[in-house]
Amino acid sequence: MVACLRVPSLTSLLFPATTRYPASLRRTVYLRNRRPLSGFATAPSGTTASTETKSAEVDRLKSDRAVTPRTKDFNAWYLDVIGSAELADYGPVRGTMVIRPYGYAIWEAIQEYLNVKFKETGHSNMYFPQFIPYSFIEKEASHVEGFSPELALVTVGGGKELEEKLVVRPTSETIVNHMFTQWIHSYRDLPLMINQWANVTRWEMRTKPFIRTLEFLWQEGHTAHATPEEAEKEAKQMIEIYTRFAFEQTAIPVIPGRKSKLETFAGADITYTIEAMMGDRKALQAGTSHNLGQNFSRAFGTQFADENGERQHVWQTSWAVSTRFVGGIIMTHGDDTGLMLPPKIAPIQVVIVPIWKKDNEKTGVLSAASSVKEALQTAGFRVKLDDTDQRTPGWKFNFWEMKGIPLRIEIGPRDVSSNSVVVSRRDIPGKAGKVFGISMEASTLVAYVKEKLDEIQSSLLEKAVSFRDSNIVDVNSYDELKEAISSGKWARGPWSASDADEQRVKEETGATIRCYPFEQPKGTKTCLMTGNPAEEVAIFAKSY
Amino acid sequence: MVACLRVPSLTSLLFPATTRYPASLRRTVYLRNRRPLSGFATAPSGTTASTETKSAEVDRLKSDRAVTPRTKDFNAWYLDVIGSAELADYGPVRGTMVIRPYGYAIWEAIQEYLNVKFKETGHSNMYFPQFIPYSFIEKEASHVEGFSPELALVTVGGGKELEEKLVVRPTSETIVNHMFTQWIHSYRDLPLMINQWANVTRWEMRTKPFIRTLEFLWQEGHTAHATPEEAEKEAKQMIEIYTRFAFEQTAIPVIPGRKSKLETFAGADITYTIEAMMGDRKALQAGTSHNLGQNFSRAFGTQFADENGERQHVWQTSWAVSTRFVGGIIMTHGDDTGLMLPPKIAPIQVVIVPIWKKDNEKTGVLSAASSVKEALQTAGFRVKLDDTDQRTPGWKFNFWEMKGIPLRIEIGPRDVSSNSVVVSRRDIPGKAGKVFGISMEASTLVAYVKEKLDEIQSSLLEKAVSFRDSNIVDVNSYDELKEAISSGKWARGPWSASDADEQRVKEETGATIRCYPFEQPKGTKTCLMTGNPAEEVAIFAKSY
Repeated sequence: MVACLRVPSLTSLLFPATTRYPASLRRTVYLRNRRPLSGFATAPSGTTASTETKSAEVDRLKSDRAVTPRTKDFNAWYLDVIGSAELADYGPVRGTMVIRPYGYAIWEAIQEYLNVKFKETGHSNMYFPQFIPYSFIEKEASHVEGFSPELALVTVGGGKELEEKLVVRPTSETIVNHMFTQWIHSYRDLPLMINQWANVTRWEMRTKPFIRTLEFLWQEGHTAHATPEEAEKEAKQMIEIYTRFAFEQTAIPVIPGRKSKLETFAGADITYTIEAMMGDRKALQAGTSHNLGQNFSRAFGTQFADENGERQHVWQTSWAVSTRFVGGIIMTHGDDTGLMLPPKIAPIQVVIVPIWKKDNEKTGVLSAASSVKEALQTAGFRVKLDDTDQRTPGWKFNFWEMKGIPLRIEIGPRDVSSNSVVVSRRDIPGKAGKVFGISMEASTLVAYVKEKLDEIQSSLLEKAVSFRDSNIVDVNSYDELKEAISSGKWARGPWSASDADEQRVKEETGATIRCYPFEQPKGTKTCLMTGNPAEEVAIFAKSY
Repeated sequence: MVACLRVPSLTSLLFPATTRYPASLRRTVYLRNRRPLSGFATAPSGTTASTETKSAEVDRLKSDRAVTPRTKDFNAWYLDVIGSAELADYGPVRGTMVIRPYGYAIWEAIQEYLNVKFKETGHSNMYFPQFIPYSFIEKEASHVEGFSPELALVTVGGGKELEEKLVVRPTSETIVNHMFTQWIHSYRDLPLMINQWANVTRWEMRTKPFIRTLEFLWQEGHTAHATPEEAEKEAKQMIEIYTRFAFEQTAIPVIPGRKSKLETFAGADITYTIEAMMGDRKALQAGTSHNLGQNFSRAFGTQFADENGERQHVWQTSWAVSTRFVGGIIMTHGDDTGLMLPPKIAPIQVVIVPIWKKDNEKTGVLSAASSVKEALQTAGFRVKLDDTDQRTPGWKFNFWEMKGIPLRIEIGPRDVSSNSVVVSRRDIPGKAGKVFGISMEASTLVAYVKEKLDEIQSSLLEKAVSFRDSNIVDVNSYDELKEAISSGKWARGPWSASDADEQRVKEETGATIRCYPFEQPKGTKTCLMTGNPAEEVAIFAKSY
């Protein structure tokens, strides 16, 4: 729920403590699985890139670093992948996370794509202070109710007790409105459309790297408009941008839709969401876009003079995606071997592993490997040549597979003689994913790599779509819903029942309405709970 | 001093309260000067782009929005420019700043350039949590002494008093070392070179937008090395990157050098700095790079096993540039008219102002203006076409000059007939900077604009260099030093005197040693204070 400006009071209902690992235990497991990495780093320097010791080392790697099988324990697998692939680490303060270079590079890829889209659609970046006077939070009634349980407060500054305690921003609607009142005067100042990339703080009790941390990174867009229609159009446009991003860049087939009233952001009229199905079939709210109506503008007096000189309150939106998305990528595509990255978002798309036995083979192999790297980099691919001689090829294969690199190119002495390379796909394990004799000639190889990366990107999406669709059950009664949820699936069925009924489903099944999907089946519908006519189907699922 | 990981205990000595405006007064002046902007925004909608009302409106603009002349009151001028050019605004919490889109775009240009350079030199971005256990700060003795007076503390989280109060990071050496101990084991893990783009908090008493704010944005690089030589090389490399950035991108002729012992960062062995001369001849420390030696690695136990298996403490550096740099750009190049931006860093390099009197002229003029915009944008320039008809051309001229756009292109009906445009340089006021009859033909215009932007970039640097050099006085005695400082200049002279003498200069003149510049005059030197032999000249100046 990190990405999502959520209703925190529901947290405890959504996530009964018994279904989750206590942080202390997970931390131990996590550290245990990180230790082997350090162990390898201090391995005797005598180890060379000889293939002779390969099988022994692969065994050692498998026993020491292999991640917990995904099917055995999804949560342990997730934490193992994060540790072994060096994506993140725990910070010294409970619930905080250090995003390591490899994990941060994925976040940078997310930023690069979205930042361009935001600017193309007329938004400017800016920066608001993170300290918000406590009184601001209290101005919008449902906002304070939603956020006050999880605030971090600064009470001392420069050695002195502060007169008014300061909130470390959990989200910025309040301070944004405070400033908007100073910048917006007439309809000519509208629309005002801004975005900021920033850190935010929510004092979460149960945390999980990337998915829910005390501090996380995100972008938050904030806009003000002269009419409700414009605000609605903007809120929908932004959820559409998120949807396209999820599908096209991260190969995550999210389901876009509208939140139920109970799940709507504290302070919004309507919340749009993209819901993703993780590998354990739990739902992840991966991004949200809110139509705030006039809730904040009325609380803060954000007004403009319209064309007739009449004072009106502005209509607003806000929308956010966070580092939680990195967690979504891990939990959508990863497998027992580790991480699996969609090529478009992968910090390294191709890893080249040179292989030699004798010293007289080394020069030829490394020179060929360098040429291949050069050719692929020039063509615009993100390439890593792993030419260290402190590791065996087998160790490197395992390491880069665990890091989720989409394509591996192997070059040995025989490949050099035949002027060709071996190409292995991360998404097709073993020999089936391995093709021999691809020409080293630049234009041929570049074309081949491009084609394979495109294929992997599509294939990951297809696999995720079919996994998603085979795990959504159409239900027409509460019993069917309960059965779907208890078998770990998502339930989709017509819904027009009350908030109390929705609450009851939550309490009895652990599932919530993830959204009323934009894509609706045709025909008349009957509410699965009440038998009354229903206008829409809703999707129910357990979630992160 | 925001950019610079400084010795805060010296602040009060450096800036006697009497030489500065009380924040409350400046705030008033600032608001007064911002108000006219809002006034204009709500001007009657009848105003059109007719040139007939031009002179009246220009007068009104001049009287209402014109910034305080720079020569009359530099500080008031600075705040006026920030308000009128919409670079920043005060946040609701004392000492905080909202960076508005135009100011943030300058910061983005700084980020884009440096981020590439950091990666080219082998650094990876990552992210550390901003909350640091209080006990960490206390581990390095001079560090805690330097920073403890200006910490913001989180004492309440999730509604509960925390067991250990948390520091909102003022800089990250402590938490970085805490994590480095977990990642560094052997010499093979070195060098470890990382950077983060982040917000930091220092509870400053006297604040000034961009220059010194409670919270600011920066990048902080942190590296660990196996040898002191490598660390020293890294620290020097980074100050060199900052120097080149300052000269080539921002046209600020900084003086790179080494800090005196008194001015060295709290926790460093050596601090390198770039010192810039502002328009009021005060020095601005615009970036710093520290050789931290083993101070933090000893305090935190950051060790590695060397090639012989012996445990050694790592050698470290840290280096930072912040949003303070935006203030430096304003105060280096701005003039009475407002901001003046070096083309390479300008969010908008060329503004196009179409001019028409009669409605039948409008279509032709706007269509020509659009073609020109298209041609320049395609060539890679950052272009704004100001085609609103709610403002007169005169108003627009003033507005964009105040915003510091390097080049203006004017297109009227006669220009359309002659297929040419008028080009005005921001850095050469009035008719001297205006050239008529430049062909509208794309390739000619693109070449002309490129040449002019290059000229402006060089010219701003030259102007700044000659201003700087004419305001540095070579001194050989304390009397000469005092005279130079009291006439507002910088004093450069041989120095080998004691810390106590340096302190005395500070107390008696208000000037500090800004640096021992890398560029040193040849020949034997005699300390200006003691008459003893001196190895180096130092530069003394009053500073921000």
